[in-house]
Amino acid sequence: MSASANRQAESLARNYKLTLRLKFYKGGAALGSAMSSIARAGGDTGTIDVVRAGKDFVIRDVSVTLRDENHGKMLVRRLKRLKYVDVVDVFDPVLLKHSGGKITVDPRLPIANASDLAEVYTPGVAQVSLALSADPGRAWSLSCKGNMVAVVSDGSRVLSLGNIGPYGALPVLEGKAMLFKHCAGVNAFPICLATQDVDQIVSTIINIAPVFGAINLEDIASPGCYEVERRLKEALDIPVFHDDQHATAIAVVAAAINAARVVGKDLSQLKLVAAGVGAAGMASIKLLMDAGVKDVIGFNQVGPVHAGRTDLTPQERWLAENSNQSGFKGSLKEALAGADMFLGLSVGGLLKGQDLKVMKKDAIVFALANPVPEVLPEEAASFVKVMATGGSNYPNQINNALVFPGVFRGALRARVREVTEAMKMAAARALAGVVGDDELHEDYIIPSIFDARVAKAVSTAVIEEALASGLARSHPDPKDF
Amino acid sequence: MSASANRQAESLARNYKLTLRLKFYKGGAALGSAMSSIARAGGDTGTIDVVRAGKDFVIRDVSVTLRDENHGKMLVRRLKRLKYVDVVDVFDPVLLKHSGGKITVDPRLPIANASDLAEVYTPGVAQVSLALSADPGRAWSLSCKGNMVAVVSDGSRVLSLGNIGPYGALPVLEGKAMLFKHCAGVNAFPICLATQDVDQIVSTIINIAPVFGAINLEDIASPGCYEVERRLKEALDIPVFHDDQHATAIAVVAAAINAARVVGKDLSQLKLVAAGVGAAGMASIKLLMDAGVKDVIGFNQVGPVHAGRTDLTPQERWLAENSNQSGFKGSLKEALAGADMFLGLSVGGLLKGQDLKVMKKDAIVFALANPVPEVLPEEAASFVKVMATGGSNYPNQINNALVFPGVFRGALRARVREVTEAMKMAAARALAGVVGDDELHEDYIIPSIFDARVAKAVSTAVIEEALASGLARSHPDPKDF
Repeated sequence: MSASANRQAESLARNYKLTLRLKFYKGGAALGSAMSSIARAGGDTGTIDVVRAGKDFVIRDVSVTLRDENHGKMLVRRLKRLKYVDVVDVFDPVLLKHSGGKITVDPRLPIANASDLAEVYTPGVAQVSLALSADPGRAWSLSCKGNMVAVVSDGSRVLSLGNIGPYGALPVLEGKAMLFKHCAGVNAFPICLATQDVDQIVSTIINIAPVFGAINLEDIASPGCYEVERRLKEALDIPVFHDDQHATAIAVVAAAINAARVVGKDLSQLKLVAAGVGAAGMASIKLLMDAGVKDVIGFNQVGPVHAGRTDLTPQERWLAENSNQSGFKGSLKEALAGADMFLGLSVGGLLKGQDLKVMKKDAIVFALANPVPEVLPEEAASFVKVMATGGSNYPNQINNALVFPGVFRGALRARVREVTEAMKMAAARALAGVVGDDELHEDYIIPSIFDARVAKAVSTAVIEEALASGLARSHPDPKDF
Repeated sequence: MSASANRQAESLARNYKLTLRLKFYKGGAALGSAMSSIARAGGDTGTIDVVRAGKDFVIRDVSVTLRDENHGKMLVRRLKRLKYVDVVDVFDPVLLKHSGGKITVDPRLPIANASDLAEVYTPGVAQVSLALSADPGRAWSLSCKGNMVAVVSDGSRVLSLGNIGPYGALPVLEGKAMLFKHCAGVNAFPICLATQDVDQIVSTIINIAPVFGAINLEDIASPGCYEVERRLKEALDIPVFHDDQHATAIAVVAAAINAARVVGKDLSQLKLVAAGVGAAGMASIKLLMDAGVKDVIGFNQVGPVHAGRTDLTPQERWLAENSNQSGFKGSLKEALAGADMFLGLSVGGLLKGQDLKVMKKDAIVFALANPVPEVLPEEAASFVKVMATGGSNYPNQINNALVFPGVFRGALRARVREVTEAMKMAAARALAGVVGDDELHEDYIIPSIFDARVAKAVSTAVIEEALASGLARSHPDPKDF
């Protein structure tokens, strides 16, 4: 990692926020000494609000950004030593926000009286039970199934935090459930598994599938994720979609389509160098190739993937047979010479800005490692035309939250059995299409997560493709959302 | 079944409701002929609303109660043959009400901007993920777990409909989820299992348990339900509560306490005859014995359970060893001679009113078979003092919806590992106590499901017992709800 990447990494890693309720006594330079103390301890002071003022004191809430919990404890110890300052309370606003959880399950209908109860519960419900038992297909319309997604993780690869188990995954899955509803009106429920055994995962999901119209696999490590997805697809008649692979791939292709528009090249002309051929990287490369990209060299930790290597996984073996036709065996930096596009789904700080100098004019760089990208945008700026990352702190954030709400909404409305490659491509093109010709710009190749047009455009594209290919099991109007 | 019970059964089975939108042309006695036609077909006409009136016609919505779907189709065919009447549309209001399902999963917090998103999702959520991974106990407060119940069924015994599978169970479980929130503010999610294998059920629930603070087993046939509950209790550190057994038992004991108050007898004096020693019956008998009832004779389909029988299940064997001390071997009707109380959790139409004549003065009869009770209240009226059923069409409805919302609310707030016998008894006493001395009456021994005091009283009792016995893993104020 370069020195500046190190600094950047440290700054990005400073994500622990505290609100300190401090009482400042008059007479000393209490506020100034507290601020100095925070700065010397390495904290960044944010907002300062007055809570209450007395004759000889002022109580203020001071928000501070720090590295981690220990950093916070250290700062609190230091502040407690100051004269004229009392530490009244310490709030962690992110944890506070999570208190009581982030989702709620509610009735869609009122139960105001005995007549309501007799319809939604016994005895009236028996009529619906018999109808669904006789024809389970009616569960799509007469139960929650038709708009319900299971968001499933075994906690084996949560964000960039690694194998932190089901409880570590739970806040992420609840967050995804929030986004499903917020962006696309889809109900989603977190399923955190107390097992990381592939057989157990598969049988558990099959067993609970009746309630769900689709399964969203999330934060499951490879290679287990491949087998879980393959076996569930075989066993179930509802879509099984591993977000980390396919939503990432769809967002990457959408961004690539628009980046190519910006630089005036065709996808088929691009020479692509990809670092990282794990689950997300491999899915992205495959969908880019489906979209027309022909010249690809992929790198894993050892080096370039080529047909002569004997240490490849089955997925990498496929890549070796379908890319790197020239049998390139050099380094990543050598591969970049003359490349049009770099796609990183690997580790932070892999490259220095200077390394990109050898790329072709109007280079496209997607550095998607999180939280620290493969190369820092400020370093890359003078060598590339279009730069995208996975973070919200730079332009062009490639985030799978742009994809999964709309893809699942469309898949549920069309009641498809699976999300096909054609549907993924349609979703990618629709996502790219949200950025109009008059909006398109090197710093705006992908819309914002808060752009309300996104989920509807993606959903509509999935439904239209499902109808066109005859795979829809219902007949929704694609324009409804 | 007696003739009147037959009629009653037919009337109770007439639960299929339709709304017919009919166009009546002026000139003929159109409305009269339609009403006659409905009556002759065996339908009961309910409300008649005018939808629209023209110069020479009136369109009305006519609600009709019928036996079943075929009955409805027959009626529609007949109405179509009438002159001066058009069948414009046919609505099934119960199915209509179930359209789109009965529950919704929503965010508890807004996602209005990038700052919100960065706290509830990446990157802020990483801080919470790490906290929960390091200490899974914090999931009780920092995730949805602390207020989330899994309502689990394999569809092997749904209502009185039998083994109609997971899709048949789904509308019932969604209805329960509605009641959990409506009555006690508890989130509940339906888990309908695509398996009826005990091993599979147990491993599936263990695997998905991290998200839940308690497990509500529901509509699982015996004897599988016993083993599922026992094994899950051993494996999990959260309450596992088979509603059909324990909630029923708690409601029965509450009603028995108040019935005994009405007739001025002590529970320990009651001679109890119980028909039906399945899951619900056995749990009710056990809890009644815990509450003080000493003299019990239980009947299964074969006859009275006594120590001399060799055809008993393990549960019945326990009962044989702990009841029927006199070794009674006669018929149910003979057993009723001199009995103070009859408890039926068996089949409709088992007894005629006359059969109760031999019971002691101020007899108590709980005839809880559904939808047709063991003996009809109108037949029993002259021979009993206190009569209760499982239906809402008579006074004193003993329904487990009086129990499960409050029990789970209390168990979750106290974060107990299990719902103990003492907690069940506390819940029963609290439920009985909702009916004040000034309210108590032979037709009001158990409160209404719509009585807002119920869930809070039950929850408070469970929390107080948990605190008193040292089994609470948190320290809530029992009076908060």
